[in-house]
Amino acid sequence: MATNWGSLLQDKQQLEELARQAVDRALAEGVLLRTSQEPTSSEVVSYAPFTLFPSLVPSALLEQAYAVQMDFNLLVDAVSQNAAFLEQTLSSTIKQDDFTARLFDIHKQVLKEGIAQTVFLGLNRSDYMFQRSADGSPALKQIEINTISASFGGLASRTPAVHRHVLSVLSKTKEAGKILSNNPSKGLALGIAKAWELYGSPNALVLLIAQEKERNIFDQRAIENELLARNIHVIRRTFEDISEKGSLDQDRRLDGQEIAVVYFRDGYMPRQYSLQNWEARLLLERSHAAKCPDIATQLAGTKKVQQELSRPGMLEMLLPGQPEAVARLRATFAGLYSLDVGEEGDQAIAEALAAPSRFVLKPQREGGGNNLYGEEMVQALKQLKDSEERASYILMEKIEPEPFENCLLRPGSPARVVQCISELGIFGVYVRQEKTLVMNKHVGHLLRTKAIEHADGGVAAGVAVLDNPYPV
Amino acid sequence: MATNWGSLLQDKQQLEELARQAVDRALAEGVLLRTSQEPTSSEVVSYAPFTLFPSLVPSALLEQAYAVQMDFNLLVDAVSQNAAFLEQTLSSTIKQDDFTARLFDIHKQVLKEGIAQTVFLGLNRSDYMFQRSADGSPALKQIEINTISASFGGLASRTPAVHRHVLSVLSKTKEAGKILSNNPSKGLALGIAKAWELYGSPNALVLLIAQEKERNIFDQRAIENELLARNIHVIRRTFEDISEKGSLDQDRRLDGQEIAVVYFRDGYMPRQYSLQNWEARLLLERSHAAKCPDIATQLAGTKKVQQELSRPGMLEMLLPGQPEAVARLRATFAGLYSLDVGEEGDQAIAEALAAPSRFVLKPQREGGGNNLYGEEMVQALKQLKDSEERASYILMEKIEPEPFENCLLRPGSPARVVQCISELGIFGVYVRQEKTLVMNKHVGHLLRTKAIEHADGGVAAGVAVLDNPYPV
Repeated sequence: MATNWGSLLQDKQQLEELARQAVDRALAEGVLLRTSQEPTSSEVVSYAPFTLFPSLVPSALLEQAYAVQMDFNLLVDAVSQNAAFLEQTLSSTIKQDDFTARLFDIHKQVLKEGIAQTVFLGLNRSDYMFQRSADGSPALKQIEINTISASFGGLASRTPAVHRHVLSVLSKTKEAGKILSNNPSKGLALGIAKAWELYGSPNALVLLIAQEKERNIFDQRAIENELLARNIHVIRRTFEDISEKGSLDQDRRLDGQEIAVVYFRDGYMPRQYSLQNWEARLLLERSHAAKCPDIATQLAGTKKVQQELSRPGMLEMLLPGQPEAVARLRATFAGLYSLDVGEEGDQAIAEALAAPSRFVLKPQREGGGNNLYGEEMVQALKQLKDSEERASYILMEKIEPEPFENCLLRPGSPARVVQCISELGIFGVYVRQEKTLVMNKHVGHLLRTKAIEHADGGVAAGVAVLDNPYPV
Repeated sequence: MATNWGSLLQDKQQLEELARQAVDRALAEGVLLRTSQEPTSSEVVSYAPFTLFPSLVPSALLEQAYAVQMDFNLLVDAVSQNAAFLEQTLSSTIKQDDFTARLFDIHKQVLKEGIAQTVFLGLNRSDYMFQRSADGSPALKQIEINTISASFGGLASRTPAVHRHVLSVLSKTKEAGKILSNNPSKGLALGIAKAWELYGSPNALVLLIAQEKERNIFDQRAIENELLARNIHVIRRTFEDISEKGSLDQDRRLDGQEIAVVYFRDGYMPRQYSLQNWEARLLLERSHAAKCPDIATQLAGTKKVQQELSRPGMLEMLLPGQPEAVARLRATFAGLYSLDVGEEGDQAIAEALAAPSRFVLKPQREGGGNNLYGEEMVQALKQLKDSEERASYILMEKIEPEPFENCLLRPGSPARVVQCISELGIFGVYVRQEKTLVMNKHVGHLLRTKAIEHADGGVAAGVAVLDNPYPV
């Protein structure tokens, strides 16, 4: 991992010319973002930030991450169907975290009146970092699993051409040939298409719940385009649109244009919900349409569930009779610690205060940029220590990958060679009809890379940039 | 031709939603332009203007235009090799038109010292409009042939996906299937690749002469990318770069990084030449590299040559023993009239003044926006009538196509349904080694459409927009 593109990163003039070529290729391939100035319009656009070179990733870790993805799909699906596990796991969290509590309320309400949907669709992304170890062989450690709005599958489908271009310009034809092909947008669309087909109404549509301000629309359009190529039509609506015009008929079918699948690209953060948006979410959840994700699957992606899954015996309980899957899953788990009030939580806090550099403090939040490290974590833990609020957080072992050099390209900034670390995501897709799993696949990967000066943050948060694994 | 997409153009709300989808698809497919605010940078970009719907074009005219393209390739190549014809044809023009005169000076100089290049590459685009006739069947009439910097082959390769998308959204699957595939960028690159190969130096590069401010860079990048895929490397330089650093070795090879092919995307308009740029052009012209175009081929594309070719006997003289090619070529000629001082020119001016709506006045200029129509033409003709300057113009029959409705999409403007006319271009490629023609092909098409209120102007001039023919 410590080896990299070496001297290529030293020639400033060559880097600048390569960067110009790479940026034009990225734009031409559709690696686009709307601008921060005009996030509601596509009149002018820019490129999504990316690395000039692909980053080296050990093949064995890539293979391991792919191999465990179907196990994670099964695990998420099992958790989402286990109301007792969810209720017990989240009982302390929902007392302290209003967002999780509101999601849980909707979950309970649909359980009470009976789940209308018969088709269940999971599109998730399991994210990993490469923990360095004493013997120098890095280990795959899961950071989190995203069960709602897992993004960048579309843009990641367009980036291999960019890195192949850069290496070809350098006459590194053999190296260019090693960049893996990747098409998560197609795989994600195939999952949606399967759920649409099982819904069984040829004129029904896919409803994409979109944000009004969406810089990352081209990531979503890539999936929409794959669906359109299969004659499946997508309409984009905001929660506000649903709140104003949405209704259910007597069979809990979404009225007007019938909806077969609701695909959420909004609704994963508290600030995305006004009161009317919560009502819209409930309306959608009560409908007969397949939701991606349904509310239970969104809850299965919380940090608290992740932490609870690492407890001895939990995987065995949720995936009975599958010891190999359990072993594969557990091998990717980092140290995870409950901060619930009690002796176990007290001990975790004491350990983190004693060695802050070894831990991360995580709230129940998606979207990047919410975690606390170092001195900030220490201050927060000191404040939380004697409060019940601490149950809304978990503590996680901090993964420390080996840094390497790469060159980061961002609109409006000069090309910058920095020490970086990467995060690998694997996209998983599964479809279940009633109790029968009819699809369980991995459909591609996402590598994101950031300067080590940034402790946290995703691509959309403006910190990590798109990358490709260069298998070694 | 009068039929169109009818009621689809009436539903304003549907048009706006279709336009949003079409714009996002165009951007994702790489139908890009740099912005007019930042023409030297790709930090933010926009889409190249285009029609929301493909425009109806009779299949027979498309086929005719494709069928005559190889004849036009032969004709241009024959003219470029006929120094006597060029000298005689341009003798009056070069006395009055400084730009043509300077090109001609370079032509004479390289003829005098002997042409160094042995490989000749033509990439041209022959443009047509569809003249309506009394019986309602439109006729293909050539507007001009572009023998230098013929553009939009790259972007035209990316637009079929956009119109297929629009028709698919409307569930017009059968109609979407009728949009022709089109890949001129690949064909143009194959021509360059063949010339590069015949030059015979595996490490030699292709030199693209670029403008500093180039909004249309993505059109050029499409060709560069096709070459890179064949391991042929392209460097982009301005005339200024060549003037500062270019030199020829004793074998008239371009020094430093050896150049096999010079591809001009600059140098077709007077304002593109400073004194040092003329020197650079001469340096390149004197080199051993294949030039696209060489100076004689650029001269073969002048309006004066076009007019002279329409004289009885000229085609027969230039393409001896090829009566079928001559007949195909002549069938596409509109009425063309010399304004040289003398009786013939006097008569042409008198006719144009008597019926101005039937004529266009054309100077020896490329790039669009230079022609004069109607009252402007009348004023110009009155001024020119008694001056020798009139020899720098030609008069052409004005082609009057049947207008039709389409919806034009431009960055920063609302979608606009207007009466339009189209211009069809066919891309031609040929390669000659010494006296042997080793490639002669048509490689795709370009349809551009503009509102009838605009008399003149190309896509780059901001008037015509990209389109696709919908064959009927």
